Amino acid sequence: MARIGIVNVTGYSGAELARLLSRHPEVELVSVTGRSQAGRKLGEVFPHLRRIDMTITPELDGAVDVVFSALPHAASAEIVGPLYRDGVRCIDISADFRLKSLSEYESWYQVKHPCPDLIGEAVYGLPELHREEIANTRLVANPGCFPTGAILGLAPAVKEGLIEPNVVVDSKTGVSGAGRTAKMEFGFSELNDTTSAYGLGGHRHTPEMTQELSTVAADGAVTVTFVPHLVPMTRGILTTCYGVLRSRVSEVQVAELYSDYYEREPFVSIVSSSPTTKQTWGSNDLLICPTVNDRTGMLVVVTALDNLVKGAAGAGVQNMNVMLGLPETMGLEHPAVYP
Amino acid sequence: MARIGIVNVTGYSGAELARLLSRHPEVELVSVTGRSQAGRKLGEVFPHLRRIDMTITPELDGAVDVVFSALPHAASAEIVGPLYRDGVRCIDISADFRLKSLSEYESWYQVKHPCPDLIGEAVYGLPELHREEIANTRLVANPGCFPTGAILGLAPAVKEGLIEPNVVVDSKTGVSGAGRTAKMEFGFSELNDTTSAYGLGGHRHTPEMTQELSTVAADGAVTVTFVPHLVPMTRGILTTCYGVLRSRVSEVQVAELYSDYYEREPFVSIVSSSPTTKQTWGSNDLLICPTVNDRTGMLVVVTALDNLVKGAAGAGVQNMNVMLGLPETMGLEHPAVYP
Amino acid sequence: MARIGIVNVTGYSGAELARLLSRHPEVELVSVTGRSQAGRKLGEVFPHLRRIDMTITPELDGAVDVVFSALPHAASAEIVGPLYRDGVRCIDISADFRLKSLSEYESWYQVKHPCPDLIGEAVYGLPELHREEIANTRLVANPGCFPTGAILGLAPAVKEGLIEPNVVVDSKTGVSGAGRTAKMEFGFSELNDTTSAYGLGGHRHTPEMTQELSTVAADGAVTVTFVPHLVPMTRGILTTCYGVLRSRVSEVQVAELYSDYYEREPFVSIVSSSPTTKQTWGSNDLLICPTVNDRTGMLVVVTALDNLVKGAAGAGVQNMNVMLGLPETMGLEHPAVYP
Amino acid sequence: MARIGIVNVTGYSGAELARLLSRHPEVELVSVTGRSQAGRKLGEVFPHLRRIDMTITPELDGAVDVVFSALPHAASAEIVGPLYRDGVRCIDISADFRLKSLSEYESWYQVKHPCPDLIGEAVYGLPELHREEIANTRLVANPGCFPTGAILGLAPAVKEGLIEPNVVVDSKTGVSGAGRTAKMEFGFSELNDTTSAYGLGGHRHTPEMTQELSTVAADGAVTVTFVPHLVPMTRGILTTCYGVLRSRVSEVQVAELYSDYYEREPFVSIVSSSPTTKQTWGSNDLLICPTVNDRTGMLVVVTALDNLVKGAAGAGVQNMNVMLGLPETMGLEHPAVYP
Repeated sequence: MARIGIVNVTGYSGAELARLLSRHPEVELVSVTGRSQAGRKLGEVFPHLRRIDMTITPELDGAVDVVFSALPHAASAEIVGPLYRDGVRCIDISADFRLKSLSEYESWYQVKHPCPDLIGEAVYGLPELHREEIANTRLVANPGCFPTGAILGLAPAVKEGLIEPNVVVDSKTGVSGAGRTAKMEFGFSELNDTTSAYGLGGHRHTPEMTQELSTVAADGAVTVTFVPHLVPMTRGILTTCYGVLRSRVSEVQVAELYSDYYEREPFVSIVSSSPTTKQTWGSNDLLICPTVNDRTGMLVVVTALDNLVKGAAGAGVQNMNVMLGLPETMGLEHPAVYP
Repeated sequence: MARIGIVNVTGYSGAELARLLSRHPEVELVSVTGRSQAGRKLGEVFPHLRRIDMTITPELDGAVDVVFSALPHAASAEIVGPLYRDGVRCIDISADFRLKSLSEYESWYQVKHPCPDLIGEAVYGLPELHREEIANTRLVANPGCFPTGAILGLAPAVKEGLIEPNVVVDSKTGVSGAGRTAKMEFGFSELNDTTSAYGLGGHRHTPEMTQELSTVAADGAVTVTFVPHLVPMTRGILTTCYGVLRSRVSEVQVAELYSDYYEREPFVSIVSSSPTTKQTWGSNDLLICPTVNDRTGMLVVVTALDNLVKGAAGAGVQNMNVMLGLPETMGLEHPAVYP
Repeated sequence: MARIGIVNVTGYSGAELARLLSRHPEVELVSVTGRSQAGRKLGEVFPHLRRIDMTITPELDGAVDVVFSALPHAASAEIVGPLYRDGVRCIDISADFRLKSLSEYESWYQVKHPCPDLIGEAVYGLPELHREEIANTRLVANPGCFPTGAILGLAPAVKEGLIEPNVVVDSKTGVSGAGRTAKMEFGFSELNDTTSAYGLGGHRHTPEMTQELSTVAADGAVTVTFVPHLVPMTRGILTTCYGVLRSRVSEVQVAELYSDYYEREPFVSIVSSSPTTKQTWGSNDLLICPTVNDRTGMLVVVTALDNLVKGAAGAGVQNMNVMLGLPETMGLEHPAVYP
Repeated sequence: MARIGIVNVTGYSGAELARLLSRHPEVELVSVTGRSQAGRKLGEVFPHLRRIDMTITPELDGAVDVVFSALPHAASAEIVGPLYRDGVRCIDISADFRLKSLSEYESWYQVKHPCPDLIGEAVYGLPELHREEIANTRLVANPGCFPTGAILGLAPAVKEGLIEPNVVVDSKTGVSGAGRTAKMEFGFSELNDTTSAYGLGGHRHTPEMTQELSTVAADGAVTVTFVPHLVPMTRGILTTCYGVLRSRVSEVQVAELYSDYYEREPFVSIVSSSPTTKQTWGSNDLLICPTVNDRTGMLVVVTALDNLVKGAAGAGVQNMNVMLGLPETMGLEHPAVYP
């Protein structure tokens, strides 16, 4: 049994990690940390976790084999750096090790990177693209919630060179992506029954998309115009990707391409009509629906996932399974809760 | 006082027309029709309209000066045709007279047009584009709920030739756009807390967008890839439009262009950050936020409106005011209900 | 035209007052105050109010005939006291002048009353119970959002002595009642798709219910067990009142009693099946459905209102109309926005 | 491995049974039936169940050891009767075998009972009250979604004789309780952002509450005034129970009484502040918060559960575990999905 620690369990990603890991048969959750709630039982802060009999501590308590850091960026690398150097396997839920380019990181996040030397060690934690490297590293950068649906929704087409390298990614996210915070603008009365765009000047998840899609691309750099939208639901991200087709291709051909590409992926399903995010509620599934608009020569791919599972904690557990040589779906087999 | 009739008052657009017209100082609602609910008081079917003391009749009851038809397409033209020929001013909420091309209409709607001879008489009911023609016709085709936000969101840029003529329109709509119907897939449990795309094979509002934007364009035809999405809110459409900029332009320049273009429009406001649909709840406002993504050279315009008001009934009342020579904002001055 | 000021316009009640007063034909909004937002335009803080061209000031700016105070309790009385003494008509949206008993006030609100001498001047602002006194005072205590539905839902039965004087009041409220605040527990992710009770130890609106129902009662004191519940909607309060019938009475008799009691009330409607809160969205309506459970001998009365209108700002405007001798419905005639 | 069949898998209870049983380690789902969807794969009707590779058949297909019937009342007994006589263990999700009195059943459900002779064989499926009898029967009547929270919320107080035998039960339910049906009144636009009461003339779950609480009572019959309310959430029932205390008792004493009563119950938790239904989302938990209103001498108990799990399918699996001699929590150990 691997001993697991969660740093900053008191956010939504942290709590979701605790939920998933508490049911995982081959690991043992041994330490959960949190600053403001230190000293309280986990079940007092999160009543749905009352059966996990643990007390939140200010720092990691005891030796761990794997640590998940759910701290904000910068703060996360400060904790992860020393742990990594001590030989601990680290899965960083924050953005700190996702970008290969230090200058890109420092420009988008407006902060000095606490451990630039470790960027080269880190693997971008999408097993669907980097499974082998994840198995061989001790430092995984868990993807942002938006990039997973965008990157995997476009990867087959980009790899095949089907579309022009200037794509549009329009995402609709539930509010839990904003985290567990006290802000008037995330209040129920402000967000219920309304939809808006944000990050119009450029959202920080954009460079992850660009980096990963450019790596996948047959012929160089991909440019991504990414606009996220806030919709009145708790969980879920629906992403609609648009790419100009370079030549005529049928929807059937595209569906085959996608099905072949993801044939062995346990969590990716190619579906023939638009998924709805609720079909992934609480599960690690990623649903992809590739379509072709014949009138306009546009590839339109719609993807759906649960931002707190495949978009955060579930992806983290999947990465952990790969790192530990466990079956990749272990602890993640439960279906979505619907409706 | 103009005498007004509403055909098919029992859908959401019909009820919204009744709500707005009941407070209009220069018109009198004299007849409301509905098949399945004929014989019942309007306030029995819609308790919020209990102060409008009218009985729903199967057919128009008495002479009217203006008729709003909120029937489904094809059924609408069948009623509107004879009324128009009798000299009545007609505002058709359905799609029957929106498309100038009969073959486009019959191809998209898969039905034979009941009065093809009247297509040439009809004016597309966007006062922001066709105010004078609306003032001089007796047959107005009220726009679809999606096209208003898309067309007016792109018109200034398209007119100026700022962008390539191949645009992407990604809309997020509340559920009331689906109408007042008994379908399992529109049930609360199915749609709450979830988002999906639909009409991926081509939505019927696309040719309206194409037709109107191509008319506006300095240099010919515009192609529109339009994907609507269903989000869990009752009212509201947020539309995000993407167009590739032909040359470098600043966001400030674009904002000026838009402000100038809509300077005298009473219902259009140019805003500097993304609107949220709730800011238009129950009002006839259209909010437009034009932005420039400098990294990717993309114009991104976000628009918001209430699909039942500026996207349907309110636009109808606005058109009626123009047709009758009344102040255009009459009966539509109330602010949105927020939050 | 009476000159109106709103103190603390930046909460939901304040903004709703501005929305309603901006359309009132016989008053002029001349000053709106707010601490944290002072110096900003009203339309910057509340985009739906952009057409009200006013700047928020830290203090009242210029002479006013009527002031609405939407400050929290205690802070409100501190402002209202001097204004009242200066001859201004005051409508206090806070709880400061609702309770006739100083000790009850200080016990429930755990604060020393800033102007105990004015308690005797104040009239409890339910025109349905105290119309004449409201017309003759310069200090109105606007009722809490919950009491209006509970008191008016039970008043006819209590007056007639139909029920035992120990009643249960179970209310379900939308979240806007909690105000416009930055608290994690009022975040969308925490409150969406969930229902809970609160105030189980005793909610501050209880003594208002007790006071007013005891005044109405034929035979003395009424005891109220009141439990409010938070449900995932923005606006609306549904209140279900339970009282043990003293003797057998038919539902028809009760309906007649209620209809007679409220016969001349412009905003109260007796309905024959359960109202749904949305039927009052944005309007000043109060819907009451009295029923009898024959099996258990229980009177069950269900009431619905919009907590920000009839439960706060609309009631305030109604009180203002009574105080100024204007038609009571002026500025409040618009129907609810449905759906 | 016990072989399991689900009759009428295509409703929400049926689908939830399939979700839970698919992860149960000691049973095998061998047959799922449905009329209108016969011939389709389960994953086509419910995409979240795509990993259960089964085809829906019109009738049970092959031998089963346990059958769950999720048919409507009357139709259910017609299927269950013959299966029971063939030796199959039956868990009836419908109301057919819940009431011990045939006349009560026929009066509340307005239908002739298809197998009145089996009523005496059936055990009311609340393991918390009838564990031993459930272990020894082959016919379990699964409780209605409302009674579980009401009965278990009041049982300790009723048994102890703490309260008068005339109680009020006020429930707030999510919409999934209404089933997976095509009705306009359950449409998203009708139910979003609104709350209403229903069943004011008497809801069919009332006699279950009366029957079971009267059995528990120290001193005879209990009378229940039950009013359900529809709130805008998908899952969850919050029930607030009111009973007049016969003598003064402290909240601490009541909490102890409740804690003792449910000490060994794996799914019941006594909590010290109001639960919120989301704390049970997708889980079999029942949360109970007993409180005392000292001012009015009222016991107020708030309970929360997921209507599709502890209120339907989860209770069914719990009953199955008891019937088969398996650990009672098997297949039901996962925590709620929060937020």
